[in-house]
Amino acid sequence: MTRHTSTIGRSLPRLEARAKVTGRAEYVHNLRVPGMLHAKVFRSSVAHGRIRAIDVAAARAMPGVFAVYTGEDIRKMIAEPYYGPAFHDQPILALDKVRHVGEPVAVVLAADAHVADNAAQTIVAEYDELPAVYDEVEAMTSRAVVHEVLKPAGTFADLKYLKDKRDTNIALDFHLRRGDVAKAFAEADHVFEHTFHTQQVLHLPLEPFACVAEPSGDPASGALTLHSSTQSPSFVRSEIARLFGWPDNRVRVKVPYLGGGFGAKVYVKSEALAAVCAMLACRPVKYALTMEEQFYMITKHATTLRIKSGVARDGRISARECEVWWNGGAYADIGPRVTQKSGFTAAGPYDIDNVHIDSYALYTNLPPAGALRGFGIPQLVWAYESHTDMIARELKIDPLALRRKNLLREGRPQATGTPMRDAALDLVLERLAARMQWDRPFDKGSGTIKRGRGIAIGFKASISPTTSMAIVNLAADGSCSLYSSTVDMGQGSDTAMAQMVSEVMGVPMEKITVVHPDTDVTPYDMATLGSRSTYHMGHAVKNAAEDARDKLYALARDVGLSAETTPIPEIFRKKYGMLAGNIVGIGSFIPPYTPPDAKGQTDNATPFWMIGATGAEIEVDAETGEFRVTRLVNLVDVGKAINPAIVETQISGATVMQLGFTLTERMEFQAGQVTNASLAHYKIPGMRDIPRVMENEAVDANQKSGPFGAKGVGESGTFGVSPAIANAIDDAVGVRLTRLPLTAEAVYRALRAKAGSPLKDD
Amino acid sequence: MTRHTSTIGRSLPRLEARAKVTGRAEYVHNLRVPGMLHAKVFRSSVAHGRIRAIDVAAARAMPGVFAVYTGEDIRKMIAEPYYGPAFHDQPILALDKVRHVGEPVAVVLAADAHVADNAAQTIVAEYDELPAVYDEVEAMTSRAVVHEVLKPAGTFADLKYLKDKRDTNIALDFHLRRGDVAKAFAEADHVFEHTFHTQQVLHLPLEPFACVAEPSGDPASGALTLHSSTQSPSFVRSEIARLFGWPDNRVRVKVPYLGGGFGAKVYVKSEALAAVCAMLACRPVKYALTMEEQFYMITKHATTLRIKSGVARDGRISARECEVWWNGGAYADIGPRVTQKSGFTAAGPYDIDNVHIDSYALYTNLPPAGALRGFGIPQLVWAYESHTDMIARELKIDPLALRRKNLLREGRPQATGTPMRDAALDLVLERLAARMQWDRPFDKGSGTIKRGRGIAIGFKASISPTTSMAIVNLAADGSCSLYSSTVDMGQGSDTAMAQMVSEVMGVPMEKITVVHPDTDVTPYDMATLGSRSTYHMGHAVKNAAEDARDKLYALARDVGLSAETTPIPEIFRKKYGMLAGNIVGIGSFIPPYTPPDAKGQTDNATPFWMIGATGAEIEVDAETGEFRVTRLVNLVDVGKAINPAIVETQISGATVMQLGFTLTERMEFQAGQVTNASLAHYKIPGMRDIPRVMENEAVDANQKSGPFGAKGVGESGTFGVSPAIANAIDDAVGVRLTRLPLTAEAVYRALRAKAGSPLKDD
Repeated sequence: MTRHTSTIGRSLPRLEARAKVTGRAEYVHNLRVPGMLHAKVFRSSVAHGRIRAIDVAAARAMPGVFAVYTGEDIRKMIAEPYYGPAFHDQPILALDKVRHVGEPVAVVLAADAHVADNAAQTIVAEYDELPAVYDEVEAMTSRAVVHEVLKPAGTFADLKYLKDKRDTNIALDFHLRRGDVAKAFAEADHVFEHTFHTQQVLHLPLEPFACVAEPSGDPASGALTLHSSTQSPSFVRSEIARLFGWPDNRVRVKVPYLGGGFGAKVYVKSEALAAVCAMLACRPVKYALTMEEQFYMITKHATTLRIKSGVARDGRISARECEVWWNGGAYADIGPRVTQKSGFTAAGPYDIDNVHIDSYALYTNLPPAGALRGFGIPQLVWAYESHTDMIARELKIDPLALRRKNLLREGRPQATGTPMRDAALDLVLERLAARMQWDRPFDKGSGTIKRGRGIAIGFKASISPTTSMAIVNLAADGSCSLYSSTVDMGQGSDTAMAQMVSEVMGVPMEKITVVHPDTDVTPYDMATLGSRSTYHMGHAVKNAAEDARDKLYALARDVGLSAETTPIPEIFRKKYGMLAGNIVGIGSFIPPYTPPDAKGQTDNATPFWMIGATGAEIEVDAETGEFRVTRLVNLVDVGKAINPAIVETQISGATVMQLGFTLTERMEFQAGQVTNASLAHYKIPGMRDIPRVMENEAVDANQKSGPFGAKGVGESGTFGVSPAIANAIDDAVGVRLTRLPLTAEAVYRALRAKAGSPLKDD
Repeated sequence: MTRHTSTIGRSLPRLEARAKVTGRAEYVHNLRVPGMLHAKVFRSSVAHGRIRAIDVAAARAMPGVFAVYTGEDIRKMIAEPYYGPAFHDQPILALDKVRHVGEPVAVVLAADAHVADNAAQTIVAEYDELPAVYDEVEAMTSRAVVHEVLKPAGTFADLKYLKDKRDTNIALDFHLRRGDVAKAFAEADHVFEHTFHTQQVLHLPLEPFACVAEPSGDPASGALTLHSSTQSPSFVRSEIARLFGWPDNRVRVKVPYLGGGFGAKVYVKSEALAAVCAMLACRPVKYALTMEEQFYMITKHATTLRIKSGVARDGRISARECEVWWNGGAYADIGPRVTQKSGFTAAGPYDIDNVHIDSYALYTNLPPAGALRGFGIPQLVWAYESHTDMIARELKIDPLALRRKNLLREGRPQATGTPMRDAALDLVLERLAARMQWDRPFDKGSGTIKRGRGIAIGFKASISPTTSMAIVNLAADGSCSLYSSTVDMGQGSDTAMAQMVSEVMGVPMEKITVVHPDTDVTPYDMATLGSRSTYHMGHAVKNAAEDARDKLYALARDVGLSAETTPIPEIFRKKYGMLAGNIVGIGSFIPPYTPPDAKGQTDNATPFWMIGATGAEIEVDAETGEFRVTRLVNLVDVGKAINPAIVETQISGATVMQLGFTLTERMEFQAGQVTNASLAHYKIPGMRDIPRVMENEAVDANQKSGPFGAKGVGESGTFGVSPAIANAIDDAVGVRLTRLPLTAEAVYRALRAKAGSPLKDD
């Protein structure tokens, strides 16, 4: 048995690499099943209104149309057809009211997708328009109320919701109180207060949402198989079963590869509509969105952030007050959890005795906002790291020195009171400083081309409490199957998990198969989100592999062989008389966790901390405001990397994504209508938008509680990008932008304002 | 927790019933995958010949043809492209020689199945014909040798093959020796010797063989998913992987429902050709046979059986000698195992001190023979139960009384020396006698219409050694998935297994899902054959469910709840803080077994015995020979029935199948060419062929070693049908048929011969 060649820490090629480049990898979009119908949706054209009438007669009469359904058709089958992870607030098709432009109002089924699409365009709806609210701060007090009544889902036991949800747009308010902020402000040498804004953007996975729902088995008792491009098969199963009032096992959710997810594909998205259409039509139904339709499904929260700090003359921060308004759009999705889970780190990775945080999840009449890579953290880091540099500039302290002075050190309590453990904040900051050669003179440019540099550092807690389970099945020939509900959406989780199995079992990588999520098959996992898979599922996988290995050793002992020296097939052959049998190892993992008290205090807020820092160098044309990022340095703490090459791509992928949100991406609205819902008008980064020099590094750290010392990396690259660039702009030309995205126009306007000749509309 | 409502022993509806009657059940024939090609085969027109040339030029040139391959194309990819469970004797496409008419010689791939078919018909092959052998007894000494050299597969450690396999058609000879037969014959009052014959027939599942092979993943290292209509996914995986020289996990075998199997779909059938075509073409390939092509794939052994008994004046049998020649056709398939495993029961369920059995597996130039429901037993029972009645008639002893006198009683050693345990031979025989009212006067008819009755009883050992494994996965909502590689091919195994899980877990049936075989997912099972699933897999399932139940109880204790009184979801919710997690139970089963020694002796030949008996009443027209079975009574010992309604259909299904083999079915050959390869010319029983009265009963027995007292039932109904009818014919009109099928013509010829005026060609 030639085991014990270490695979951990090696940049092995991805298991799926060749399948993807040769076009063989399975995606839901490619799936066709016999008798399948295509669903095309008619969407609301108003942001807020009471439905007066929906005329589907023309659509129903169109040749080739199989059926047309409205919310009322669904309500005949399901009395309460509302879903959502935090509140059951989202109807499968609009009922009584519409709450944002683009909300699904009716659906057409046809064997030909084009016929369905044409028919959907003939549908006419009449609305009694209602006052709408779009801004997150206005939503706090607006008389336009998006939801009159709300039903908490009760999914997450640790979320404390408002008791009375009538006549308010506040879905959740989270408060953290530490020390005495008022007293500290009064005693501080300086008090700084700034307000920052982020825009609404979206995930735009290149594979849009898609689900094929197949009625299976008994039409009377009901049963469905969903082939879905989802990050959360376990959740989808339970939620769809709940909608129909079925036991969970009547719904089977199968997930092939995903063409990106980024948090868009968590919880229920395309699945509910596909499922009800399939059950109403008694036919398989594919609901696959266009790129344009993705703009109406789920977005990233626009935010307003007010941050106020009390600072001593030497730069020591004694108090910080944060107020964060999250623009959740028309349906809460997981926004309330963003509000809480990210909210508690709003004061930044600094050692501040007095902290006061208010974080509000708000309903507005925009498309819903939910989880997006970073889960609220990039918005917060944008604010607190811009704020850090503004303080440094004001106090004439070097921005690096100011951060060094205040940084949370190992063992010190974070704002929740949870002590920092294995959080390499200082190492990440110091490696960034070294990479940036911060102590060397920096060429500030000449003529109209000015040069500047900036840094920023952020951190994020992982998600808790959650559960992961895994099964490792060792066949008699020595090959292994890993059953895991972790979704490989491009982040390389299949490969990382297989490496862990390989390491524990001493089985070479080519003998390991990863069984993709299938709720009838792969055991429970909370979801693939929050950079939790490597750590949470990694533990479960490692435990399962160790269980299988222990059983293999026991089997070998049982037949008088040494598992150390005998090839695996020989052990099985001796036991079973032929090449037969399996060994099944099981592993599960639930990290320890203490829910926060009423003041947001807890001794265990997270199983691990993610750290990410970015340094930017830029060139700005001081006459036109045009600028380009010439160098982007990204440092993260991933503990020990399972596969360094994949970690590197995760850092660069996250950074480039955040670069788009920083420089070019913004959903434009007119009366709630997105006006740039296409890749032609909504600009995501292309190859030519990548900084000429981009350096990505995982510091040499160790998450002692992690599997093989590892922790998650999917989001850390996003944290520091936006403020590092804004800080660099300020460094170059002395203007401060407080609103994303950072455009040449914004810089130009700021330069004009600074020069005392602001543009007329500023 | 409302557990403990017993589901065992209840005639619950089949899980798949509605899916099947509504046309929703999945079959391989319905499967289409993108880019799929259809494979159509060009077959040998000679029974034995050396391949001189194969001209595929016209086929290759036909528009729409993707590729044409011969055996030589395969040999470029696989040096030794031979497969088989006993010998690696069967080429994927003919190489060097053809050995039977209908053997695949070349294959055409096209996107359109009709194009492929048309192209295949343009292929021309030239052969140097060789002498052929068709008869199993002639094959013993024929100079026509089907295989010059043979490679034992080594799959089954307990099969003892001939050392030298050159220049013989004997694939395996099995010998059993008990006592001193020669001495006993010399001392016997009477010695009877008869020879019997059975014809070649076949399974004819209404779903012909079908496999879709999809290349998956990396074309360089190779990987395949096979969607196959197979009874043995675990074997197919290993065998296909072996052919390509891959680890097992590169082959994934998924099995939906089967439209019948009956032993045809065990081991590799359509899969090897589909797999190599897919790998050569780098495209998904479907190889789905027509009904006609099934006649060339696998058949049931034609046999010649010589049986000789030494009997005392009072009917006590003191010695029996059996010689059985099994016509294995051109490739061994599992024939050698039939020869051994059934061979050892050739002397019947009687307590005979001196037994001598020789059983020969022979190659001939006919389509291969393998496993078919009963696995050789119906051929043996046909002989020994005809022989029993012939002795009774000769000695003027009532046939029931003769059987009673000689029957193997509980604890007595069978011919192998293995003591009979839980084999309700006497109970089955007595219930049959009671049902037939054997002790009452019987109306023998009048005029030319004569009436007669006959009985027969047979037994069968189960297969050993084999391994089964199962996994039970309990979700937080209290629903269960059972992962089992048992194939539901119509026998109702899904339902029976789910009932066992329900019973142990106390979970209602509608919350149990059975995950169909998928070698990446469901654990190892030897195969679905030999009536082994209820017992072998049943044990594994029961063990897995018990493991899951124990873990649930432990989980409840862990969180301070009583598993007896708390609903399952509450236990999980308390443990995980939300409806999360799984419990995974694992079970395996290997029955104890002692391989036979050189004399065929063993103290443990089988984990259980199957018993089946049939009584027939018939009416014969003594002028024309026409007859009909007016009543058929079938008694079996299944231990305790898990689902009595399904057991009943298994008995009736097996009986009707054997009725076809008894009365109408026969493959007709001319120079090795099947001349009746269609359902129009090969007559299987239709509804009007079923006896007007058919009674099926499982006796009130208990297999103490079985799960819930149960054992297998798939084959027991086949045992007694043929001899019971032949015995009834003899009872009615005094003629004895020794050759199947029993036709009106055969009766007429026998009546003419008895009357002293035989037909000229007799």
